[in-house]
Amino acid sequence: MRIESSSEKSFLEQVFTKTGFSSADSELLADTLTDADLRGISSHGIQRLAWYLNMVKEGTIVPQNKVKVLKETPTSLFVDANQNMGQIASAFAMRKLIEKTKKSVVSIAVIRNSNHFGTAGYYSRMAAKAGLIGVSNTNTRPLVVPTNATEAFLGSNAFAFTFPAEPHPFVFDGATSVVSSGKIQVLDKNKKDIPGEWAVDKDRKIVKNAKAAEDILSTAAFTPRQKGGGVLTLGGLFENNSNYKGMGNSLVVELLTGILAQGSISADTSVGKHDFSQFFLTIDPSFFGDLDVLRKNATDMFNRIRHLDHTPGTEIKIPGDREYKNYAENTKNGVTIDDQTAKDLARVGGELGVEVPKEL
Amino acid sequence: MRIESSSEKSFLEQVFTKTGFSSADSELLADTLTDADLRGISSHGIQRLAWYLNMVKEGTIVPQNKVKVLKETPTSLFVDANQNMGQIASAFAMRKLIEKTKKSVVSIAVIRNSNHFGTAGYYSRMAAKAGLIGVSNTNTRPLVVPTNATEAFLGSNAFAFTFPAEPHPFVFDGATSVVSSGKIQVLDKNKKDIPGEWAVDKDRKIVKNAKAAEDILSTAAFTPRQKGGGVLTLGGLFENNSNYKGMGNSLVVELLTGILAQGSISADTSVGKHDFSQFFLTIDPSFFGDLDVLRKNATDMFNRIRHLDHTPGTEIKIPGDREYKNYAENTKNGVTIDDQTAKDLARVGGELGVEVPKEL
Repeated sequence: MRIESSSEKSFLEQVFTKTGFSSADSELLADTLTDADLRGISSHGIQRLAWYLNMVKEGTIVPQNKVKVLKETPTSLFVDANQNMGQIASAFAMRKLIEKTKKSVVSIAVIRNSNHFGTAGYYSRMAAKAGLIGVSNTNTRPLVVPTNATEAFLGSNAFAFTFPAEPHPFVFDGATSVVSSGKIQVLDKNKKDIPGEWAVDKDRKIVKNAKAAEDILSTAAFTPRQKGGGVLTLGGLFENNSNYKGMGNSLVVELLTGILAQGSISADTSVGKHDFSQFFLTIDPSFFGDLDVLRKNATDMFNRIRHLDHTPGTEIKIPGDREYKNYAENTKNGVTIDDQTAKDLARVGGELGVEVPKEL
Repeated sequence: MRIESSSEKSFLEQVFTKTGFSSADSELLADTLTDADLRGISSHGIQRLAWYLNMVKEGTIVPQNKVKVLKETPTSLFVDANQNMGQIASAFAMRKLIEKTKKSVVSIAVIRNSNHFGTAGYYSRMAAKAGLIGVSNTNTRPLVVPTNATEAFLGSNAFAFTFPAEPHPFVFDGATSVVSSGKIQVLDKNKKDIPGEWAVDKDRKIVKNAKAAEDILSTAAFTPRQKGGGVLTLGGLFENNSNYKGMGNSLVVELLTGILAQGSISADTSVGKHDFSQFFLTIDPSFFGDLDVLRKNATDMFNRIRHLDHTPGTEIKIPGDREYKNYAENTKNGVTIDDQTAKDLARVGGELGVEVPKEL
């Protein structure tokens, strides 16, 4: 079914407030999840609500805790998320970086003691709106098998990068691995097979059954145990196809997050503290040239790529094209909610005394 | 055959001086090429000498030109390489960034009007030696087919990232595409087939013959014509295996280099100015924690990864492991020179009146 995004946001805001988040934090959290649904990234939308609320119940997320600045200079920021939702510390840090970078051309932030922060692109797009280049990284649960390895260790570590362009910014936003685990969860829910080479078992044999892959991943991600296997690095199964470059990309994010923050690396988030770490970078492109000229040059390049010769029946898309198309459609027609999520929302609404959107 | 690296460096230094480079620039250029050979990256070593000297003859590289600083702040630097070798402006910029970052935690540089800069890792390793995180990017000739496209447009755009660790820094250094064109050249020279899914023809069919692939690439790279086809983005042939992520990585580098520098994008380096652009970033990790602790944590993570369960007969390597192993071996036993390169060096030495290394 589809529901209006304004109804989704209003429902979420009330739920978060009743769960103990401040009204400003509740508004932000509702906005990040609704924004993901509007962009068609439903794996990071309202379907995560029950999972977040469960982490509040378990004490992994503490809604009352305030973000703390540990260290700050005109170009740098070290923040303690204080075990609250990753979105709160991340939006706080990105707002500060935007101010800093407008004065100092470049600035960076690291966040420790954090949790899941939604889509990485939410924060890099904040920079794009301010005319800046934005980079946003997080580590995750251990899901990914390094080159030649038969057990998961690396996170699916997200990387987002935005650059000003028309009719929308360049928004490259996703897991550094072949796919995020959310994509496999969605296939499992819909009882579909995996269409590509995404996951392997304990012998590094490709797993096509989404349920089997989901079993491997949830064991690796949420318990200290391992079945063996996991998601592949970008580049796939073989060293000959340079899958160590996908591993390198994941390690870059791990170094900038878990290691710089002195928090857990992805491999250790399945035990103990369950903390994630985040990294943000913003750059002011107008130091190097007129922003309108840079934006036009980037836009021209993207348009040339969209119109290159290509194989029949396919399209060439620039990162962000799909998201912004979904955003326009879903703003008009409402966001899609699957049946299982609809049931979860009815239960959550009942428990907290929040009226569910009328369409449900 | 093998020659001592000191003989290689001394020969190169004399050749560059006779070609019109200053003595300081000649020493740097000789060091970058010898360093690549020592690390086993022979595609970027002395075998490039004839190619560089040819660009000097054609006027693409102008050895007498001096680097110009266009704009500078305590955190940022915009440099004109003034059509001299990319190595000269890049080492200049990285030395400045190291000074800046020790005061300001983070700094960036963009270089315009540049040429090929050797290995990206040379500059990010300069940062690592100073206890900093280093990032080094360049765009290149058009070699890479975007997702679904049947013609080359993107550069094989290099990305290097270093982080302090023991017994050597983490050095992730390579093309953002599946491979650099140099790897295909080396196979062609040795009359070997391509062992993976690296290149496609005008119908996006995999090309296994290295000579056929080399024909496709050299036409796309050095002429305004196209045969169709090129190197694949990381992720390979299929959108289902997320090859658009490899395209995204290449575009990130293109935006930070050709677009920010307002130089040629990779697609336009085959015509007109032939200029490349570079981007550098350095971060001081000691803002976030004690450098010895961060280095130890990174080292511990890498050691755990090296010892993960893996498929029989394979090894798990961390980016940099192979390079530093080669470096130790080749420092002791000498660097390997292929027959064609040996002939080229004899010819160059004869023309310029420089004595070739005795082993040749």
